[in-house]
Amino acid sequence: MSSLCPLEYRYGSAEMRRLFTREEMLRRMILVEAALMKGLEKAGLAPRDCWRSIMICGRSIRPEDIDRAEEKTGHDVGALTMLLAERCGKCGGYVHLGATSNDIIDTAWSLVLRDALRIIEEKLVDLMRTLIGMSEKYMDLIMVGRTHGQHALPITLGFKLAVYVYEYARSLERLMSLEDRLIRGKISGAVGTMAAWGNKGFEVEAEAMRMLGLKPHAISTQIAPRDSFAELVAAAAILASQLERMAIEVRELSRPEIGELSEKPRGTMGSSTMPHKSNPVLSERVTSLARLIRSFLTASLENIALWHERDLSNSANERIIIPHTLVVLDEMLESSRRILGGLRVYPEAMQRNLNLTKGLILSEALMIKLVGKGVPRHQAYKHIQAIAGKASERKIDFLEACLNDPLISSMLTRSEIEGILRPENYLGMYEKLAKRAISYANLTLKQYEGEHSLDS
Amino acid sequence: MSSLCPLEYRYGSAEMRRLFTREEMLRRMILVEAALMKGLEKAGLAPRDCWRSIMICGRSIRPEDIDRAEEKTGHDVGALTMLLAERCGKCGGYVHLGATSNDIIDTAWSLVLRDALRIIEEKLVDLMRTLIGMSEKYMDLIMVGRTHGQHALPITLGFKLAVYVYEYARSLERLMSLEDRLIRGKISGAVGTMAAWGNKGFEVEAEAMRMLGLKPHAISTQIAPRDSFAELVAAAAILASQLERMAIEVRELSRPEIGELSEKPRGTMGSSTMPHKSNPVLSERVTSLARLIRSFLTASLENIALWHERDLSNSANERIIIPHTLVVLDEMLESSRRILGGLRVYPEAMQRNLNLTKGLILSEALMIKLVGKGVPRHQAYKHIQAIAGKASERKIDFLEACLNDPLISSMLTRSEIEGILRPENYLGMYEKLAKRAISYANLTLKQYEGEHSLDS
Amino acid sequence: MSSLCPLEYRYGSAEMRRLFTREEMLRRMILVEAALMKGLEKAGLAPRDCWRSIMICGRSIRPEDIDRAEEKTGHDVGALTMLLAERCGKCGGYVHLGATSNDIIDTAWSLVLRDALRIIEEKLVDLMRTLIGMSEKYMDLIMVGRTHGQHALPITLGFKLAVYVYEYARSLERLMSLEDRLIRGKISGAVGTMAAWGNKGFEVEAEAMRMLGLKPHAISTQIAPRDSFAELVAAAAILASQLERMAIEVRELSRPEIGELSEKPRGTMGSSTMPHKSNPVLSERVTSLARLIRSFLTASLENIALWHERDLSNSANERIIIPHTLVVLDEMLESSRRILGGLRVYPEAMQRNLNLTKGLILSEALMIKLVGKGVPRHQAYKHIQAIAGKASERKIDFLEACLNDPLISSMLTRSEIEGILRPENYLGMYEKLAKRAISYANLTLKQYEGEHSLDS
Amino acid sequence: MSSLCPLEYRYGSAEMRRLFTREEMLRRMILVEAALMKGLEKAGLAPRDCWRSIMICGRSIRPEDIDRAEEKTGHDVGALTMLLAERCGKCGGYVHLGATSNDIIDTAWSLVLRDALRIIEEKLVDLMRTLIGMSEKYMDLIMVGRTHGQHALPITLGFKLAVYVYEYARSLERLMSLEDRLIRGKISGAVGTMAAWGNKGFEVEAEAMRMLGLKPHAISTQIAPRDSFAELVAAAAILASQLERMAIEVRELSRPEIGELSEKPRGTMGSSTMPHKSNPVLSERVTSLARLIRSFLTASLENIALWHERDLSNSANERIIIPHTLVVLDEMLESSRRILGGLRVYPEAMQRNLNLTKGLILSEALMIKLVGKGVPRHQAYKHIQAIAGKASERKIDFLEACLNDPLISSMLTRSEIEGILRPENYLGMYEKLAKRAISYANLTLKQYEGEHSLDS
Repeated sequence: MSSLCPLEYRYGSAEMRRLFTREEMLRRMILVEAALMKGLEKAGLAPRDCWRSIMICGRSIRPEDIDRAEEKTGHDVGALTMLLAERCGKCGGYVHLGATSNDIIDTAWSLVLRDALRIIEEKLVDLMRTLIGMSEKYMDLIMVGRTHGQHALPITLGFKLAVYVYEYARSLERLMSLEDRLIRGKISGAVGTMAAWGNKGFEVEAEAMRMLGLKPHAISTQIAPRDSFAELVAAAAILASQLERMAIEVRELSRPEIGELSEKPRGTMGSSTMPHKSNPVLSERVTSLARLIRSFLTASLENIALWHERDLSNSANERIIIPHTLVVLDEMLESSRRILGGLRVYPEAMQRNLNLTKGLILSEALMIKLVGKGVPRHQAYKHIQAIAGKASERKIDFLEACLNDPLISSMLTRSEIEGILRPENYLGMYEKLAKRAISYANLTLKQYEGEHSLDS
Repeated sequence: MSSLCPLEYRYGSAEMRRLFTREEMLRRMILVEAALMKGLEKAGLAPRDCWRSIMICGRSIRPEDIDRAEEKTGHDVGALTMLLAERCGKCGGYVHLGATSNDIIDTAWSLVLRDALRIIEEKLVDLMRTLIGMSEKYMDLIMVGRTHGQHALPITLGFKLAVYVYEYARSLERLMSLEDRLIRGKISGAVGTMAAWGNKGFEVEAEAMRMLGLKPHAISTQIAPRDSFAELVAAAAILASQLERMAIEVRELSRPEIGELSEKPRGTMGSSTMPHKSNPVLSERVTSLARLIRSFLTASLENIALWHERDLSNSANERIIIPHTLVVLDEMLESSRRILGGLRVYPEAMQRNLNLTKGLILSEALMIKLVGKGVPRHQAYKHIQAIAGKASERKIDFLEACLNDPLISSMLTRSEIEGILRPENYLGMYEKLAKRAISYANLTLKQYEGEHSLDS
Repeated sequence: MSSLCPLEYRYGSAEMRRLFTREEMLRRMILVEAALMKGLEKAGLAPRDCWRSIMICGRSIRPEDIDRAEEKTGHDVGALTMLLAERCGKCGGYVHLGATSNDIIDTAWSLVLRDALRIIEEKLVDLMRTLIGMSEKYMDLIMVGRTHGQHALPITLGFKLAVYVYEYARSLERLMSLEDRLIRGKISGAVGTMAAWGNKGFEVEAEAMRMLGLKPHAISTQIAPRDSFAELVAAAAILASQLERMAIEVRELSRPEIGELSEKPRGTMGSSTMPHKSNPVLSERVTSLARLIRSFLTASLENIALWHERDLSNSANERIIIPHTLVVLDEMLESSRRILGGLRVYPEAMQRNLNLTKGLILSEALMIKLVGKGVPRHQAYKHIQAIAGKASERKIDFLEACLNDPLISSMLTRSEIEGILRPENYLGMYEKLAKRAISYANLTLKQYEGEHSLDS
Repeated sequence: MSSLCPLEYRYGSAEMRRLFTREEMLRRMILVEAALMKGLEKAGLAPRDCWRSIMICGRSIRPEDIDRAEEKTGHDVGALTMLLAERCGKCGGYVHLGATSNDIIDTAWSLVLRDALRIIEEKLVDLMRTLIGMSEKYMDLIMVGRTHGQHALPITLGFKLAVYVYEYARSLERLMSLEDRLIRGKISGAVGTMAAWGNKGFEVEAEAMRMLGLKPHAISTQIAPRDSFAELVAAAAILASQLERMAIEVRELSRPEIGELSEKPRGTMGSSTMPHKSNPVLSERVTSLARLIRSFLTASLENIALWHERDLSNSANERIIIPHTLVVLDEMLESSRRILGGLRVYPEAMQRNLNLTKGLILSEALMIKLVGKGVPRHQAYKHIQAIAGKASERKIDFLEACLNDPLISSMLTRSEIEGILRPENYLGMYEKLAKRAISYANLTLKQYEGEHSLDS
């Protein structure tokens, strides 16, 4: 039967999708069984070097074997332990001893998610670096700033991009911060008391954690606490929404009436029927997938309030939510990288749009100048609003309207007014602010590198 | 690469999963292209019988072919039309003429969803019939009714089940009601005006609809309106939540302390480490999956407010949400069927629990009797609350406490009190109400059958 | 203490907000207690005409009285029944006899929601009528149709508005359809069996329903089933998202670069610092509030799966969700009405934008013509894509590029090409489609009127 | 008109509700205007000590004044600045100079949210301390651990409570972590460039921040980035879900069949019709309100992807979401405190339930012992599962079944078996784990105190 889920063939990078295949998940579960065995050995509860046997005999087990065995056991971890027991000779008798399924599952999730988070973080870091470079490149490229979809004041493209840099840095912080809560091992048995290992529980746990390179949860029930899974999906949903924000920028600024940006033409059909179209399809994809990740958060939060020492109601949906969230976020980062990589910038369109309101966007600048000359702000505001209204009605330049105004022309010379109405004179601290944002991000990047420098 | 989405191998019936495979979706898209061709022929815009050619030459196209062609076209429907054009000889020149991708996609969705809805409805109908039978079978099996998790008044199991019957009937109504809005064809071109077909648009549409057995949308943009997709997911989420409600009932009533129900033991492991356990895993699965369907609604609603004559931001997530919602709901109905099919009922536990509060659950009955004897309700309430409190404290039977109470014993004889405190005497209209609910459901079922009698 | 919830002073019409005040809710609860009493009388369980006493003595009870009494009873309906019992003399002794709190609350919700739904529906009907009128007025005003934010093909403003008419008609259908499931009385006692009224339950219910003008639920637990509350919020969320869709249209088309529409200037500040701005604030408000209603759906769905014969976990959030959903939706309809009422249309901007791509948007028309002349569609598509590309690169008119093309100019005369590239010649069935949509909506409106003609 | 939102009179502590009243919000907005003025002064853009004038003349402004002024300005911040300008004499002329509304609103949100977060954190700290005390008190009180609602292995109440301690500590970490991203000032003008203050922008900002005790955002648009608002609601939703988890524990364990816990009886009606009931209403309220906070997250995430330098679509819903989230979370913490404060623990019921399965819950202990004696785990598992099945069927003690089993009795003496089957012998590392969890939490508490020690 051909596949029904588009994640199988359409979205996400190969490296990320591979991580969440049944095969890879199985590899990690076997690794956790081996680490548990190593812990048992250390505590004197299993024969020496059985953990190596597990590693070796585990290699032959495939997802299909699990499916067949699950028909007998009704339980996938049960199936795995049965197969290991059957295939690992004498050591088989000690497999999974005193453990519960979620010791294996949740610790395997931590291993997979550690890798998945790294992929996400690396791509986010990469995106931030690209944006920092672009921000510096376009630092002085003036364009109109828009609020409510209306023209507000001039900014520069570099300034705009620096805002994204700051926003993404905050997401990187969140991802780094949640790691300590999420990526932890859980080897504590059926209700979390480690009962089966008597007073040797901490030894079993410590050795298993050492082998896997994980910290343990301080305490747990049958499962690891689900708050950090929700925290992961929340951080993913926030990042996804930030990526959507940039994607919407591209979609809007590539409208033909605006024309300031466009996704790289890819020599492909824009439409199956309209030969002339060049649609911002990657940015639209990012928008679409953001909705999906936001959605998963709902279920993820509902999974927190499990009954007592756990009920199973997190299980079935997590099998879907966790891979889908990570693969979809990965796709979004990939698409965002491609968007930025191919982005075309049209300075002449920016210039044209900047002048579209015939100088009106500089009205605040003039108001400020009047206040500097002693006109109360509120009066200045009203006075200029009136001039702006007239200029707009008569479709004349704001400059002309100002020159015709007795009050303005009594206080300022033509060349003063001209200077005030030049966009490049009303950019404030744009460069210093952009640099402050980039410094902030660089600090975060440095911290990220510091934490992961010894990894590879 | 082995699969990463559990819908590929773990959840949903084969028939439902098959519906949403790429292969099946492709078949339907080709069918829609053929129907469009038939419309074009009828309107004199394409040569006679080209629609048959499309049907025949379309057979050779596989999802892999689409993938390869999409590399050139950057667009999956574009890929399909290119392949049809190449493979269908002279008729190829008329393929997709004047249509837009979503004429094909949205009409194909309608075809798939018509089948998917039928599967869902049939399983829901089946579940309702099972419940009606069980409700009748257990009509007089008395058990305690619970509110706030506390014992309230006696009910019967048949009465409880009749409530589900009513609730599910309402969901069947919703599904039937949305069909007229959702299952409609969309053959109207790039912005919905049918421009390419001049004044022949209605002819093209009418013939295509006739061939597919669909009504058309009264008007559309580039795509069919998305409100009905959200309505579908909303109806699915409501039904899923109702199924969860019944699943929670099973989970709660199969607690060892309660023991009134249990999922059929399946001779399988309950736990990979606790050999004695028999867990309500199907009911827990239903609970888990309900969360997933609820989640999808969020994205589905966000897909409604598309820009202008459409933007693409519904596309990527719908590829996931639509199949996942239907397959997961199908799994929930299958699991619910299995739960009811194997359900074990323990009348002795019901009896034991009914007596657990030593008669207190009948205190309302006594209060009502006092009011009948002229004691104002509020006074009666307080008086009996006090007796109930004392009985509870001293752990004596409520009957005994009543007999010791001067007021009560002055108004009622022992045998009268005994009669009042018998659960079977305080079931009110349970049977008539259950029958009224079943009649309501039967009417809905009849209407359903009426609408679908000519289908097969 | 001044208020903290903006619904108290900022959003929603007075009539809708009034409906959900504590005062009004209390009035309806007392009405339900009276109706219950009338039922008890009819069944011989209470003295004649006590229901009138309840109506009269209930008038003196104020929300503050409930607050004080609730300190004793810990329960607001308990407080009400205590006050009625105290203040209604002899009849007080029969107040609430055999009923449970949610008999009163849920039936009162039905009364409030019946009125609230009517307000919503009337405003929706009004909006549809306005849109129908506008659609007819602007039927022939040509503008560009946009997909992916890019120019696609010409449409007319009337056609665009007719799409909204169709979409809203579907929402009106949904609202009408859910009413039969939602607006029902629930008078059935603590676990839904009507136990307290012996074999007179149906009589009590029937008389109470008659007085209130309600149908009863066929069966219930301690409460009315919550699926229809979720259905209400879902229908509200869908309608809210449709309103958002129109609001986004206004926001986008009033960008200065596009300028085709604007919200009526209201002589107010657009910005506290930029005197020239005129922001589409009503449309932005509609967008914002749509998110809020979508949000409430999540909780509303979680309220369905209550334990057994009910648990209280729906209660606290429903006190917030129900009023907030209706008041916010009411605000959205009011704001939408004001948007349409003040909407300014700029035909010259539409004309300008229509020509922005220098004829490229008619490339499909030309392609179709070539196919009509025997060029296979796919070849025609590629050929025209190439011409379009060249025209775009060289910034020349598409007409000119076509005339320069040997193939085109060999097949078509200049005046034929000119005719093909005239937007007014490529509008297809726009008018008939718009009329079909309006007919569809008129049918829905007629059905609505039919159902509610006897109401006032 | 009496109120319609229950937050006005029903939920939340007085201190929290006060924070979000219009009055308090207004006070903070005036404070921000004063701080801005102080910044202007420092930069030489306004006369000395005008900030004091603002503080003084601002005192007379009330929410009602804003309402009246807003009718003219159509804008609430515009109304405020107009009133300040009118009432503050000469200094009025410099009010709001170069600022945009959201400089005031977002910085005021930071001030309010700083206080609100403190209230939440203090109550969470308090709850954690209470739980730590209770965990220590009940460290050795044995009860059954439950998974899937079924009996699993013995734990202790102290151990169970320590799990909550750990979970809440993680929430406290999250709250502390987000503060640095959320509680920041935003004084940067209409598009974030500080254009109006020329090259003095950083001076204005620095002085204003100093006065308010805030760090600034590194960069901003017209508004502060919305990711941290979503992060706040996400952290609130996670904490709410954790509180729900504990509330469900109380609700479940106070079922009459279980009876291990109960909310303190409060001498109030449990039901308006069933005098005997004592319902866990506070825990049900916590459950209900958790759903509400989870809901708000949806809108909060949608608010991130604002257009360009901002659009207004976050505004209307944030006015509702922000106060409602905090007040509802405050209510949940208050209710949780009351639940724990009044919680009754019934050791005898715990003992009774522990023995309910007649020793079966210790079957794992026996299995482990067999493995220790050389039986392969998988064989031991199957063997014991069979014995457990028999014991369960025949309703005999597991001990007896074991003694009757040839294999078991050949390997272990009666007294050995008795020892193995004693719950107190199979608690593993429960105490050390609970202490590890408490240590973890204490570290977090210490860090919290460290960060806030200088605050008061």
